[in-house]
Amino acid sequence: MVRIAELEIDPVQLEAYKDALREEIEASIRLEPGVLTLYAVALRENPAQIRIFETYADVNAYKTHLETPHFKKYKAATQTMVRSLKLVAADPVLLGAKSSDFRR
Amino acid sequence: MVRIAELEIDPVQLEAYKDALREEIEASIRLEPGVLTLYAVALRENPAQIRIFETYADVNAYKTHLETPHFKKYKAATQTMVRSLKLVAADPVLLGAKSSDFRR
Repeated sequence: MVRIAELEIDPVQLEAYKDALREEIEASIRLEPGVLTLYAVALRENPAQIRIFETYADVNAYKTHLETPHFKKYKAATQTMVRSLKLVAADPVLLGAKSSDFRR
Repeated sequence: MVRIAELEIDPVQLEAYKDALREEIEASIRLEPGVLTLYAVALRENPAQIRIFETYADVNAYKTHLETPHFKKYKAATQTMVRSLKLVAADPVLLGAKSSDFRR
């Protein structure tokens, strides 16, 4: 399961937001077997625009993710920082990555 | 170096485009040490909209990529298939991935 999250962050709170996001990503990758990638980037022409390329093993892994303490903490902590959030569903064409995880 | 490519493909040629893209990604990941990920997805609400999440070891790896035979073949083969192409420069916040490659 693949999704692209498109977020706009309050520029004044951007660094605090990034810290909260990093903590959430580190915990998710470390603790959840079904969270495969959370690639978070800031657009260069507008760094308050965040994109997260999310891949989960399956829909259940995603549902489990939403119920974890670290995800709930992130959602609560960033509530006033996020100006807009768009979740874009996507389907793999080919997820090519160095190392053993060359996923279709 | 991180970039998001946003492409719109001629719907009639979409399957041919995806085949050419898969071939290009497989060759790039297999042959180029500096190509770290080429994650290609189709948006569910409009599958002719392709997004490619690209990470390269550095700018030189990207420049080398542009000169490879497989990339040039892909560009030539898909020239009439691609209706629009937007390259969005981005900077990592945290690239979290299962396995050993947990990159900042």
